[in-house]
Amino acid sequence: MLHIRIKPGVRLSEQPEIGHNRWHSDIPFLASLMPGDEAIIESLDFLDAQIKNDDDVSDIRNIDLTLAHPLTGPFEIIGAAPGDLLVVDIIDINPITPIGFSGNFSKDNGGGFLVDYFPDPHKAIWDLKGLFATSRHIPGIKLTGLVHPGLIGCLPSYELLTEWNKREAPLVAQGLAKPPCPATAVLRGLKGNKFDQMAKEACRTIPAREHGGNMDIKDISRGSRIFFPVYQKGAGLSMGDLHFSQGDGEIAFCGAIEMDGAMHIGVDLIKDGMAKYSINAPVFIPSKIKPHYENYISFQGISVENGVNYYMDATVAYRQACLKAIDYLEHFGYTRAQAYLILTAAPIEGRIGGIVDIPNCVCSLSIPTGIFDQDILPK
Amino acid sequence: MLHIRIKPGVRLSEQPEIGHNRWHSDIPFLASLMPGDEAIIESLDFLDAQIKNDDDVSDIRNIDLTLAHPLTGPFEIIGAAPGDLLVVDIIDINPITPIGFSGNFSKDNGGGFLVDYFPDPHKAIWDLKGLFATSRHIPGIKLTGLVHPGLIGCLPSYELLTEWNKREAPLVAQGLAKPPCPATAVLRGLKGNKFDQMAKEACRTIPAREHGGNMDIKDISRGSRIFFPVYQKGAGLSMGDLHFSQGDGEIAFCGAIEMDGAMHIGVDLIKDGMAKYSINAPVFIPSKIKPHYENYISFQGISVENGVNYYMDATVAYRQACLKAIDYLEHFGYTRAQAYLILTAAPIEGRIGGIVDIPNCVCSLSIPTGIFDQDILPK
Amino acid sequence: MLHIRIKPGVRLSEQPEIGHNRWHSDIPFLASLMPGDEAIIESLDFLDAQIKNDDDVSDIRNIDLTLAHPLTGPFEIIGAAPGDLLVVDIIDINPITPIGFSGNFSKDNGGGFLVDYFPDPHKAIWDLKGLFATSRHIPGIKLTGLVHPGLIGCLPSYELLTEWNKREAPLVAQGLAKPPCPATAVLRGLKGNKFDQMAKEACRTIPAREHGGNMDIKDISRGSRIFFPVYQKGAGLSMGDLHFSQGDGEIAFCGAIEMDGAMHIGVDLIKDGMAKYSINAPVFIPSKIKPHYENYISFQGISVENGVNYYMDATVAYRQACLKAIDYLEHFGYTRAQAYLILTAAPIEGRIGGIVDIPNCVCSLSIPTGIFDQDILPK
Amino acid sequence: MLHIRIKPGVRLSEQPEIGHNRWHSDIPFLASLMPGDEAIIESLDFLDAQIKNDDDVSDIRNIDLTLAHPLTGPFEIIGAAPGDLLVVDIIDINPITPIGFSGNFSKDNGGGFLVDYFPDPHKAIWDLKGLFATSRHIPGIKLTGLVHPGLIGCLPSYELLTEWNKREAPLVAQGLAKPPCPATAVLRGLKGNKFDQMAKEACRTIPAREHGGNMDIKDISRGSRIFFPVYQKGAGLSMGDLHFSQGDGEIAFCGAIEMDGAMHIGVDLIKDGMAKYSINAPVFIPSKIKPHYENYISFQGISVENGVNYYMDATVAYRQACLKAIDYLEHFGYTRAQAYLILTAAPIEGRIGGIVDIPNCVCSLSIPTGIFDQDILPK
Repeated sequence: MLHIRIKPGVRLSEQPEIGHNRWHSDIPFLASLMPGDEAIIESLDFLDAQIKNDDDVSDIRNIDLTLAHPLTGPFEIIGAAPGDLLVVDIIDINPITPIGFSGNFSKDNGGGFLVDYFPDPHKAIWDLKGLFATSRHIPGIKLTGLVHPGLIGCLPSYELLTEWNKREAPLVAQGLAKPPCPATAVLRGLKGNKFDQMAKEACRTIPAREHGGNMDIKDISRGSRIFFPVYQKGAGLSMGDLHFSQGDGEIAFCGAIEMDGAMHIGVDLIKDGMAKYSINAPVFIPSKIKPHYENYISFQGISVENGVNYYMDATVAYRQACLKAIDYLEHFGYTRAQAYLILTAAPIEGRIGGIVDIPNCVCSLSIPTGIFDQDILPK
Repeated sequence: MLHIRIKPGVRLSEQPEIGHNRWHSDIPFLASLMPGDEAIIESLDFLDAQIKNDDDVSDIRNIDLTLAHPLTGPFEIIGAAPGDLLVVDIIDINPITPIGFSGNFSKDNGGGFLVDYFPDPHKAIWDLKGLFATSRHIPGIKLTGLVHPGLIGCLPSYELLTEWNKREAPLVAQGLAKPPCPATAVLRGLKGNKFDQMAKEACRTIPAREHGGNMDIKDISRGSRIFFPVYQKGAGLSMGDLHFSQGDGEIAFCGAIEMDGAMHIGVDLIKDGMAKYSINAPVFIPSKIKPHYENYISFQGISVENGVNYYMDATVAYRQACLKAIDYLEHFGYTRAQAYLILTAAPIEGRIGGIVDIPNCVCSLSIPTGIFDQDILPK
Repeated sequence: MLHIRIKPGVRLSEQPEIGHNRWHSDIPFLASLMPGDEAIIESLDFLDAQIKNDDDVSDIRNIDLTLAHPLTGPFEIIGAAPGDLLVVDIIDINPITPIGFSGNFSKDNGGGFLVDYFPDPHKAIWDLKGLFATSRHIPGIKLTGLVHPGLIGCLPSYELLTEWNKREAPLVAQGLAKPPCPATAVLRGLKGNKFDQMAKEACRTIPAREHGGNMDIKDISRGSRIFFPVYQKGAGLSMGDLHFSQGDGEIAFCGAIEMDGAMHIGVDLIKDGMAKYSINAPVFIPSKIKPHYENYISFQGISVENGVNYYMDATVAYRQACLKAIDYLEHFGYTRAQAYLILTAAPIEGRIGGIVDIPNCVCSLSIPTGIFDQDILPK
Repeated sequence: MLHIRIKPGVRLSEQPEIGHNRWHSDIPFLASLMPGDEAIIESLDFLDAQIKNDDDVSDIRNIDLTLAHPLTGPFEIIGAAPGDLLVVDIIDINPITPIGFSGNFSKDNGGGFLVDYFPDPHKAIWDLKGLFATSRHIPGIKLTGLVHPGLIGCLPSYELLTEWNKREAPLVAQGLAKPPCPATAVLRGLKGNKFDQMAKEACRTIPAREHGGNMDIKDISRGSRIFFPVYQKGAGLSMGDLHFSQGDGEIAFCGAIEMDGAMHIGVDLIKDGMAKYSINAPVFIPSKIKPHYENYISFQGISVENGVNYYMDATVAYRQACLKAIDYLEHFGYTRAQAYLILTAAPIEGRIGGIVDIPNCVCSLSIPTGIFDQDILPK
């Protein structure tokens, strides 16, 4: 069975043959798999080995986000053609170093969903022990892993790549999206003219797009099956950004429990599956095996913020639910920053409530109470 | 035990003593409960008996939405004071007529989350049989009830009511929110000057607000416990809009499986609980007893719509996930309208994925496959 | 829809037209159902209204067990013939009086699984409130209903009845089984010669047999589907002994949370299903909706009792597990009798562990910790 | 962290320093752990490397059962004293070779729960792939691992050892239990007089006893916490017989999906815990993470076998339930032997139903339907 090994703790730029940190249609394949094959594929943490196992937040404060995400791949799936569905079974995922990290970026460099409320960076280091994670920076909680890839998907076609650049340009112009950045791009070791040409149009990996990519969906956990649209001959499957655990939204951006890990996958094809099922974005079957919590405490948010009533805005509503949960957790001995990191790292459920409750929208956020070693229900 | 009975099929305006269809701080109490008491409280369907058990969609097309929502209450909780938390246990909920309905409004009258894609109204009638619901209008599916109140909450203070009117005014001016509407207001039988004065400032019930109200959160199902902020002496708890089942978002607006029903509740108080736990919106503990599904098929949406890339917009992302699910269900013999109604009525999970995937946001929508009598997975 | 009503609190002998308390092939049908029909069928508690809502245990001490079980039926299923499978959907079950009871019989009159350890009778009265039950006799616990029929099945053929009597005769001779008992038999109001002839060969209802009958399987709860062998033209379905909740084994015999209730069923047929699937005893599909517990504490028992090592004896092993759980619960403020009643009434899981661990057998007993209002884990 | 490595495929007698295959109070400790420590402990398959990855059943037919079970240990827990509780957290378990096996022994050599119905041996080899197992010998099923130790426990005191030998002697005399067997005993490399003296009184490992041992309880799966009685200074924890998956009862004896594996544990102590909680046999808290099945098909058995009615005999009742499930599975393309191996290896639930259904007892056996790639419900 193919096993792609990486060097943990070493930047992608120093082992460029294993992958890439930008999306482009023409990145050369790393290896080939037949439908029915399995492989074990290792990948670096999403910040490309910049974070240290210490109590100093300066690595997060000074992060170079243009290094994200070091992906392993792309893999050719023999026989795959545009219009097919690539079936990926996540047979298992495990850390390859016993340490993970979570954090939130500073307002000046990175930001995040609650950046206006948390302008300063914070960091938590996690000890990954078998099925569980604990952190010396957030005492009193123990998370059962809901291990998943934050980022997985196939190469875009050149047409799709062009469309991405085009549609993101207005947001780039406003500073709300990131343009290609050749300086730190890695494209599987390409150099010279070919690299120069591709790097200036190679899309950043942070947003999820219709090929999947940085979906950060915690429920695509080990044991899941995913159906990906194929846009290129050979598909070009890549993956990385492995998470030991994550809450819905990955709200602190830096982010889940981030780790170096190994993903055991199986691949298969459904020929012409895109048209057969009208699938043009990833579809998945969640896993049968995942942490199983009985009790939650749930918070409600509506799309009213700072006295302004937003029209059916789920983003605002979810942010409000997050803030209310943080307010609450303070009463149980956590700092606001610790509470923020709990919400980003623990398997919290962020659900959409009434979305036609004109003009408001409702979201709920549910925290599994079983992660705490104290009772956190109101009495 | 107090049992408030209503006449099913009879408009609230013809039995005005049981409740109200607007929010105001000064609506007189219907009855009083002591902390520790239980009560069974019946309520009308959310459209105030306007929908008929037939195959004709004209009742939905011509709906008078100003009649929504006929609520039963308000109930005084003896000893409740502003700053307390009102604890409500949902001991059970059952239909009182064996018929429910779902539908989507027309673009001209009512609208909804997918109105631009479904400008014409549709209707499905459900047979409610014990724990289950089936519909002659959507063959091949059987839903296990996740029975819950769409709407529940306490009276606002007058200051809060004033704030609501103020902050919603800009959206009212744009036609994106609904102003008070005295013509069809019912305020527990009040008449004359008192009614006239209150009705012109009494808020509509459609949006959820910080008191709870029309939250349409399916997970506040029977067996749940809710903690409500108290804004008024006596609290003033009201409820209605009972749902036999609903998908996250209640995306068709008209809406869940709507029904006349009876809610068995218990009430208690946590004195000064709002400050004690920093709670200023409903908090709840979901039920231990609810339908239990193993297998889901999940769809992903990103905040790109009609070629435009929206900045971290969960509302757009969830709409895209909904549309992709509808596209998919067409391949299994459903019309697009039937698929829309399945998503609004079945216990689908609408979750927030990466919400910092700058510039996009990701949402997922998961359909329990066990509701179908056919296999709906891709092969 | 057919609705068979009973008079709660009134002995079967005073409303004999509704059912029977013995099994015989020739009991006349109470009513007829077509395949596809639904019905609501009420039944008396399994002790035929002998138990009072009080704190006095003398009703249990002096019980007349020959009155058990008052069943409602038998129902003819039109078209059913020997060799078919009768499909029964349990659409819902609800109490019709808000009171249930649990108890253990005295050693002199009734006995039970732990009779040697609990020779004296005890009783607990339960308040049934919506989805939940609490008891003034066992403070500090709250059970979520796992509502099910303790007894359900079809009439035997005359040949099968004869076989039952024959195979039970040796145990009757040893006092380990109960013979027919005409004195208190009710056979749907039959009288005279016909009654006399049938009553002397009509089997008691206490043991489960291959037609189902008194299975006391908690997982045949509301929402389940059962497939019953048909032995008679018309099938002859009868049911009773409704339980609001029960632990595996129903170890106190008197027994679960016993109640008067109404069972909403649907019926259908699989023609020649017995041979088609080699089914000659009930097969069932458990419900999708039942209480959902995350945390259990589990006890192990082996087949060693009072210093004697029994060969692979699951009965002994389970009894030992029960006793160990009772020992444990004493440390949390319960008397041994209360603990016994908790195990018989709460949804405990009694599982078979290694059954080839020659010479011992292992059983485990798991108690859901969420039923207690205190933490019952070892620290 | 301590990591005890073994040589897979090599008999314990050839690496005797790692463990033992008999129980005795005086086996020297392999290593020491402090309360709070973690360790990774590898162990051999329960048949001590006798089974080959092939299609030939002769290895099972000719098995030397006196080699069972090769255990790794015993481990001293520093500070443990008789009367304490040893707390063991199962942090993870993984195979160390990607192959597992299941089988049933022949009637002449080994036997098993259904030996009278399956006198000839059978074997199935499993491929262990991440979270899943499949077998070329049982096509069409895929098991999600419920990984657990079949055998784990502490050393007995000498008094307890003496009691074991004494109480098992009558069954040994009848050929229903196995006596000590010095010829193939391994006691951590002991030799000479000390070995000779101990080996003739060292108990076989097959039965579970009050210290735990060969419990074969599938629900003590990874993620569980176990509380063991301590009988000896230092406790002396040993373990082995790791299972990738198992059905309740492990009915084929040879047995679960047997494997070489590594168990990651943490240990702690509750001083004087045995008396504090009246615990004299293992108590455990099942895992929060395990395969999660929605749909089961369940079979009922009663304690009637070959026309004989046994008195409240759960062993007979469970055997009947097993046989009925095997009869049923034949209709879906499986041989009886394959069906037997499915029941022993898949996570079936074997529960005790009414155990006071005098004279019968009821057991149920539930098979998760999701392990099959076909629909196995009756239609």
